[in-house]
Amino acid sequence: MALAEFKDTMLPAIEAELKNCIQSVSQTGENDLFAMLAYHLGWEGEGAGPKARGKRIRPLLLLLTTASLGKDWEIALPGAAAVELVHNFSLIHDDIQDQSSLRRGRPTLWKLYGIPQAINAGDSMFALAQIALQNLDTSVPVEIALQAHQIIPHACLTLTQGQYLDLAYEDKKDITTSDYWPMIRGKTAALLATCTELGAILANADKNTQENFRNFGEFIGLAFQIQDDILGIWGDSALTGKSAESDLVTGKKSLPVLFALEKSGEFAKRWKNQTIVPKEVPELAEILKTEGAYDYAKDWVDKLTNQALDWFEKTEVVGPAADALSELSNQLIQRVR
Amino acid sequence: MALAEFKDTMLPAIEAELKNCIQSVSQTGENDLFAMLAYHLGWEGEGAGPKARGKRIRPLLLLLTTASLGKDWEIALPGAAAVELVHNFSLIHDDIQDQSSLRRGRPTLWKLYGIPQAINAGDSMFALAQIALQNLDTSVPVEIALQAHQIIPHACLTLTQGQYLDLAYEDKKDITTSDYWPMIRGKTAALLATCTELGAILANADKNTQENFRNFGEFIGLAFQIQDDILGIWGDSALTGKSAESDLVTGKKSLPVLFALEKSGEFAKRWKNQTIVPKEVPELAEILKTEGAYDYAKDWVDKLTNQALDWFEKTEVVGPAADALSELSNQLIQRVR
Repeated sequence: MALAEFKDTMLPAIEAELKNCIQSVSQTGENDLFAMLAYHLGWEGEGAGPKARGKRIRPLLLLLTTASLGKDWEIALPGAAAVELVHNFSLIHDDIQDQSSLRRGRPTLWKLYGIPQAINAGDSMFALAQIALQNLDTSVPVEIALQAHQIIPHACLTLTQGQYLDLAYEDKKDITTSDYWPMIRGKTAALLATCTELGAILANADKNTQENFRNFGEFIGLAFQIQDDILGIWGDSALTGKSAESDLVTGKKSLPVLFALEKSGEFAKRWKNQTIVPKEVPELAEILKTEGAYDYAKDWVDKLTNQALDWFEKTEVVGPAADALSELSNQLIQRVR
Repeated sequence: MALAEFKDTMLPAIEAELKNCIQSVSQTGENDLFAMLAYHLGWEGEGAGPKARGKRIRPLLLLLTTASLGKDWEIALPGAAAVELVHNFSLIHDDIQDQSSLRRGRPTLWKLYGIPQAINAGDSMFALAQIALQNLDTSVPVEIALQAHQIIPHACLTLTQGQYLDLAYEDKKDITTSDYWPMIRGKTAALLATCTELGAILANADKNTQENFRNFGEFIGLAFQIQDDILGIWGDSALTGKSAESDLVTGKKSLPVLFALEKSGEFAKRWKNQTIVPKEVPELAEILKTEGAYDYAKDWVDKLTNQALDWFEKTEVVGPAADALSELSNQLIQRVR
């Protein structure tokens, strides 16, 4: 069974689990708060639909991990809902922090409801992520449920530590590539590592296997983020037509940029002298490539992908779910916008 | 043993538990994020000290409940830290939402660090509230620890539902006294009810006793909020000298105001016609009293306090800790600013 077939059954089950959880908000009459959460998750409002929902990568990673270990993935659905809600709570707050007007092609929550209500909706979704785990009561032993309750807040804390660094770097001039790693470990890798680790915990795998899956997820996360950095500068939508979306315009402290800043060449001079406007993007992206930033980042993606694969091999999982998990990881790292 | 004596031993233990938990942030090198949290909790920065810490009412309620049931309150310290962190996470976000510049006499976190970092610090404290509970592993059986992990997120969700209403009411013209109750049940009573309920859960009390303690905390919370509303209009600091702090100036939808708006008398006319400025406050507070709003609110405080006491009696707890708990509740409801 290929990834597509797993998705056909898993994605509707993930949506149902999420809805079941979010609906507890509307039971107390706070229907407008429910509407905000349902809008952000892509279920309601203008532009609702699969595109507005995102790819549900994190719950898929989790469920496929559980399935690859030979367990019924349905027992892990509460965990899958929890990681997706954590991801989305962080997006709601990210959008406020970055003053982003659009998310998945639609106006962001704070643009529609204002900053105070959007902060609160994010908090609500954070609480719901923990509440989602409570359905584990009926599907796994109490010790395993407790482990799930413990691992999720740690991922959230690490997420906020990465976000702290990301925000702090905005005002800092002398960021280097060594500052990059703790930031993306927190912002991106921690939650992906938690998805695979929790998938293994819920499958009642031994500590060693949990650790192998955790490392697999962590390296997938790191490689994924750098691939995202590459696409943010040299990807189609960054270079053609929508140069305003280029990470060079938004000023993102991505790995290629930090590499070039350390080299203090032509790119660094331009970057430091003034804000970059969309029409300069193609030329600057080319300069950045000439200075070796593209190859540097690509090398890291390869190195980290290989490490991810090494950890995956150590898990020794085989079969259709393991194949689908490997297929999903490949898509994540080599995805094209 | 009176409340003061319990405080002498409990308050330092609460601070130690909180510090132990918050310090996990600094272990990963994010010392500035730690500094933000430590500032908000009153430990660091200008004006740090007991006054900046707040009264730690919620953890005291929780620990005294556990103690009143004959259990060693130290086993409940992780729960006490959790409720205090939940309270403080919500204050950090509240201050952003209300654009408040001062909290406990010091600049608010967002005033010092900006909105993006303050949102993130609140999220971090929210995650730490869950992490605080993990120390229960060594002090109570696994089933009880799991219950603690389940009750806290529910309190947080209810908190955000109340906050949603509070924010929504700002733009609504036709709020009545019946809109008031779901708001304060969420914003104030839910967390206080969770303190007493969790104190009973951690003491391994039976379901009935847990429920009695929960109701006791809930009614204390409701009475406390209305007493706070009364002080916000007729209290010393609202009337003399600092009229700018009066709830009549900030436009808070408190119970006395909603009562008078329903009556559509002189006060309602003035309230609806224009923003109230500090120099009008003493006169308007007097009009409000003449229209019966003070008596109406005071009656509610009495009624709710009696209900709280009824629930407390049903718990049948006696002894020094029970006396201290009763003393703390009285202070909460009759506190003078």
